[in-house]
Amino acid sequence: MTAQKIRTVIIGASGYTGGDFMRLAVPHENIELTGLVANTHAGKPVADVFPHLRMANLPDMVKSDDINWDEVDAAICGLPHGTAQDIISTLPKSVKVIDMSADFRLRDTKTYSEWYGRSHDHEELYSEVAYGLTEHNRDDIRKARIIACPGCYPTAVLMAMLPLVKSEIVETESMILNAVSGVSGAGRGLKQNTLFCETGEGFSPYAIGNHRHTPEIEQEINKAAGEGDLQVTFTPHLVPMSRGELISCYLTLKAGQTISDARATMEKAYNDEAFIHIAPEGVVPGTQHVRGSNHCLIGLFEGRVENQLIVISTIDNLVKGSAGQALQNFNLAFGIEEQTGLEQLPLFP
Amino acid sequence: MTAQKIRTVIIGASGYTGGDFMRLAVPHENIELTGLVANTHAGKPVADVFPHLRMANLPDMVKSDDINWDEVDAAICGLPHGTAQDIISTLPKSVKVIDMSADFRLRDTKTYSEWYGRSHDHEELYSEVAYGLTEHNRDDIRKARIIACPGCYPTAVLMAMLPLVKSEIVETESMILNAVSGVSGAGRGLKQNTLFCETGEGFSPYAIGNHRHTPEIEQEINKAAGEGDLQVTFTPHLVPMSRGELISCYLTLKAGQTISDARATMEKAYNDEAFIHIAPEGVVPGTQHVRGSNHCLIGLFEGRVENQLIVISTIDNLVKGSAGQALQNFNLAFGIEEQTGLEQLPLFP
Amino acid sequence: MTAQKIRTVIIGASGYTGGDFMRLAVPHENIELTGLVANTHAGKPVADVFPHLRMANLPDMVKSDDINWDEVDAAICGLPHGTAQDIISTLPKSVKVIDMSADFRLRDTKTYSEWYGRSHDHEELYSEVAYGLTEHNRDDIRKARIIACPGCYPTAVLMAMLPLVKSEIVETESMILNAVSGVSGAGRGLKQNTLFCETGEGFSPYAIGNHRHTPEIEQEINKAAGEGDLQVTFTPHLVPMSRGELISCYLTLKAGQTISDARATMEKAYNDEAFIHIAPEGVVPGTQHVRGSNHCLIGLFEGRVENQLIVISTIDNLVKGSAGQALQNFNLAFGIEEQTGLEQLPLFP
Amino acid sequence: MTAQKIRTVIIGASGYTGGDFMRLAVPHENIELTGLVANTHAGKPVADVFPHLRMANLPDMVKSDDINWDEVDAAICGLPHGTAQDIISTLPKSVKVIDMSADFRLRDTKTYSEWYGRSHDHEELYSEVAYGLTEHNRDDIRKARIIACPGCYPTAVLMAMLPLVKSEIVETESMILNAVSGVSGAGRGLKQNTLFCETGEGFSPYAIGNHRHTPEIEQEINKAAGEGDLQVTFTPHLVPMSRGELISCYLTLKAGQTISDARATMEKAYNDEAFIHIAPEGVVPGTQHVRGSNHCLIGLFEGRVENQLIVISTIDNLVKGSAGQALQNFNLAFGIEEQTGLEQLPLFP
Repeated sequence: MTAQKIRTVIIGASGYTGGDFMRLAVPHENIELTGLVANTHAGKPVADVFPHLRMANLPDMVKSDDINWDEVDAAICGLPHGTAQDIISTLPKSVKVIDMSADFRLRDTKTYSEWYGRSHDHEELYSEVAYGLTEHNRDDIRKARIIACPGCYPTAVLMAMLPLVKSEIVETESMILNAVSGVSGAGRGLKQNTLFCETGEGFSPYAIGNHRHTPEIEQEINKAAGEGDLQVTFTPHLVPMSRGELISCYLTLKAGQTISDARATMEKAYNDEAFIHIAPEGVVPGTQHVRGSNHCLIGLFEGRVENQLIVISTIDNLVKGSAGQALQNFNLAFGIEEQTGLEQLPLFP
Repeated sequence: MTAQKIRTVIIGASGYTGGDFMRLAVPHENIELTGLVANTHAGKPVADVFPHLRMANLPDMVKSDDINWDEVDAAICGLPHGTAQDIISTLPKSVKVIDMSADFRLRDTKTYSEWYGRSHDHEELYSEVAYGLTEHNRDDIRKARIIACPGCYPTAVLMAMLPLVKSEIVETESMILNAVSGVSGAGRGLKQNTLFCETGEGFSPYAIGNHRHTPEIEQEINKAAGEGDLQVTFTPHLVPMSRGELISCYLTLKAGQTISDARATMEKAYNDEAFIHIAPEGVVPGTQHVRGSNHCLIGLFEGRVENQLIVISTIDNLVKGSAGQALQNFNLAFGIEEQTGLEQLPLFP
Repeated sequence: MTAQKIRTVIIGASGYTGGDFMRLAVPHENIELTGLVANTHAGKPVADVFPHLRMANLPDMVKSDDINWDEVDAAICGLPHGTAQDIISTLPKSVKVIDMSADFRLRDTKTYSEWYGRSHDHEELYSEVAYGLTEHNRDDIRKARIIACPGCYPTAVLMAMLPLVKSEIVETESMILNAVSGVSGAGRGLKQNTLFCETGEGFSPYAIGNHRHTPEIEQEINKAAGEGDLQVTFTPHLVPMSRGELISCYLTLKAGQTISDARATMEKAYNDEAFIHIAPEGVVPGTQHVRGSNHCLIGLFEGRVENQLIVISTIDNLVKGSAGQALQNFNLAFGIEEQTGLEQLPLFP
Repeated sequence: MTAQKIRTVIIGASGYTGGDFMRLAVPHENIELTGLVANTHAGKPVADVFPHLRMANLPDMVKSDDINWDEVDAAICGLPHGTAQDIISTLPKSVKVIDMSADFRLRDTKTYSEWYGRSHDHEELYSEVAYGLTEHNRDDIRKARIIACPGCYPTAVLMAMLPLVKSEIVETESMILNAVSGVSGAGRGLKQNTLFCETGEGFSPYAIGNHRHTPEIEQEINKAAGEGDLQVTFTPHLVPMSRGELISCYLTLKAGQTISDARATMEKAYNDEAFIHIAPEGVVPGTQHVRGSNHCLIGLFEGRVENQLIVISTIDNLVKGSAGQALQNFNLAFGIEEQTGLEQLPLFP
């Protein structure tokens, strides 16, 4: 018996998320990577762009025009926001799209244009879109044609927050989300601040009060809370490491709620999940404990101040925060066992 | 004319703070390092313990008993907390003590014993002690015999917070201090979690809700606010870099106060200071911008949520957070120009 | 149909090589990890020792006495040299041993005692031992009961050198092997020089002229050359990274030989190998291109000086240099397809 | 009495070497930085380009045309090779030039054009040029108008090799120089391979057999040996750290020479030098022991193979390898005490 093979094309195959999807997809028994689109590298072997994939048997990079979309079952989109929507809108309806860009994450096109600096020109596709936070949206994901995979920060934040908000364990007024990311979160483009010498041996905040993942987090928190205009404080910082993301959430327990309630709620929410883990009492999550894997580790801690709850959530930004969650959604969309291709344990040290 | 020479002994000369004090003291024209105490390394040349000081002309390490304290003007104490107080209590009154340990920072010995796990046995010395946060306590420091240099985290926190609290710009109820440090903050002792492979490419919180610098921060905030029982939320995290400390303070402006008021207050407070700098609007401080120097860089930012003020404060934990501030206090105590030996600009990259 | 399950015990499960073997073994369909021996951690769950393995379903750590060896098919030994031989000698003959320590690598017990500082007390076992450099010794490995997996440096060196020596392409008089390793090569024990702050942002040689992997390299080079007393120059250096090993080999082509001959020889030697890759002309191997994987990447370059051949060989020291090669040998020993459990592509970035 | 002030302009002030020269020059009592030329940043404050220099009182960046060269005593040139010669040729003869670029290092313009890909158009200036390897060329440097500071690699190599070659201690046929550098050696320009994620946790050779510092090393070795066509094997590698350079030199002792002779020769050569240190027997130099300083540390070791001498030489590539040596030459050229501004000890950790 031969495994079913999904003919899969990666659009934006030369970036870090595209590269990480390839890493995961090559050993996946149901995936046949039939096209790798990277316009500026068209004609090159993959190994010229990603030397670590030299040993994989992959086709050369091509231009998007070179793809015959009638022979494609799935498109994985690793393009930057703004470019993704235009290409996705041209694909035939027979192609399922797993979009790692930001273009279909926000349901409100006005919010999109405010935060992303261009109009959203494909509102007509929204009826086919599901927000791809796998553990919280499986039914929609299974039915959608376009899966808008969450941003890396929203993934780590929402895994920590949604059960607590839905169960009304925490106040929703003053949620402070202090976030950090490894440098790969900034992508592979050439920018001075991601040079080794600029960020090595350094730690610095950025986009204070105005990071683009903020409205996405708020959209989902509001939905979970049944509210409309809750706002969060979200401050990202850059860490001198390649991979990893960790959120320190400072929350307030609602009157009558305890940290035990919070823990019980979280454990119940993720008890059957393969990738989301609530750390035992006293165990502190670190990014190095999930590196290279699709796992998310969450710890709950009592704060010093009364009724304070501190939740720590960590993922690998390129895996659970991007390519891994995309693959998980891919599996779901095609009726494949959800963990396929994601069995790897974290790489430590 | 020969410069005045202060005969100076370092106690605990084999740790990182002792080593960094040597780095700064060697080119200092008023310091003569006459004794380097490191009991477990007694008899060794400095270069065996700190190869980077090979080119300095320094005496060999000795035991504390080998020092003739009658010929010593100043003792710099780089011992761990708990050990420092016992040695300091035996020194003759003719010796000025610059203590980088935690032993004389807390004015309340009960709080000390609760947080440091041993009794404080030398309350009788408190009348001779000044808290060595230089820019905020010069008069006391000049007059004291024992200068209790602040912890690294409290230094970065208090530089950011004291003017805002004193001027009643911010609420003092819900101060959230998210802190990070390079690994040198954990000292040179052998611990698994400071091995390269354990902390490299990783980021993790620690001591959530119970770090020992918390009561020290609260003591000074309460003093500045004229209160007695204010508490802060302080959460430290470990970053894969050797040096550097950065605090992200989430504060609430008091009614009627604006970020412009906050900025004006801070600029006024530090306008004449050589080492404390308020970054211009929009400029984000990073640890790499103060590395190796005694400088502190502070930025103020509007949060997304109404009335929120985010203050970012960064220092080098071993310099302004320890050996540099100790030298600054040393200069003050001996009537030497305060910046002497601290003229080095940050090392970048 | 259920896959055959080999009941496997790891001895020395709390070190980095033991931990990496677990990482690879957990998803392996033919391995059942029935015992994890770590005497100083006996009784602890794996997650206390390796937080990144929290999500694996593994038994708690035990003492070696707790193992019933009659119910064990395979022992993976990750102990330090010197301790391994004593335990291995007590195991019943029904247990196949994959030894990642140095204890059975050297065929000459006198050489062993000279370099390892203790006598070899189990020469009687040598007839059951094969040297586990998989690609060069499959027949012996299949038949042996004890497989002495090569050291990490010898693995990278010998993959580069053996075909060239066997085919008499290069002179064997003056082989200069400049080697570097990530810090995990020094193990998980507490040593000052592997602290983050000591080795971070630093590069330094060590064991110049007397590293213990030297006689192992010489043993195999001599065997390949049909000689007895060839010596090599081998100088290891420590790099501020966790994983990875790279050897820069400075060789001299024999008269009449060219770099094309060398390349052809290498390509022929490894053409059918899944894990050993000869980089195309002009492509320079880097450790980041094999990280986390069992792959070895080798490049050949013309030197500036006439007849000089520079060969660059890189592996992940914990995988192909230790746990991965051990698993490869395990597969071979038990008749399992050799690549099973080693399909992971390198993790980049 | 006021110290003499040399009016100094930095051309190419936005690169790492220009930035490091500023760091050293600001506290220098004889330097007045009157102009900072960086064409693409003209009009910006220094802090926009180098946030770590915010606290220095420096003029804004300007275009080269904005400088009135009649009011300038010294020009420090931190431009890339190729651009430097054209600007330097236009400067009035009253300006002393300390050139950190490669443009006047090679005495043979044909060699220059072969290795640097453009013609040398200013051979007429050669009579005014001295090669700025300070410790080996003081007389020429004092008299020259243009000082061609050596490349970073040549500095570390030549400090180790020149005394041994001049004293005929080692053979000059087969010198193998295995070199490594921190990433700052590649400059501040935007290149994919110097992004944090590309080079972090990785080690790789580059420019094997054809690095541009090779002819420069050969020029000086030939001069010292009284030969004309000696060639060296020089292979650089990139290390995941910002600063630091280390050369592992594999040499052969001439018949009759011993390692003691070599050591005695080296100690004699550098006995009176403030910045060059021969490590005691058994002490292994590492880049972290000279970081941020103008010091060079050299160790000599017996190889395993008969008559082999291994010499390890380490510097900070941006200081002794560039800006520090430039300042040392500046001091020499203007009759200032040579160590002025270079008293800083290495920054460790």
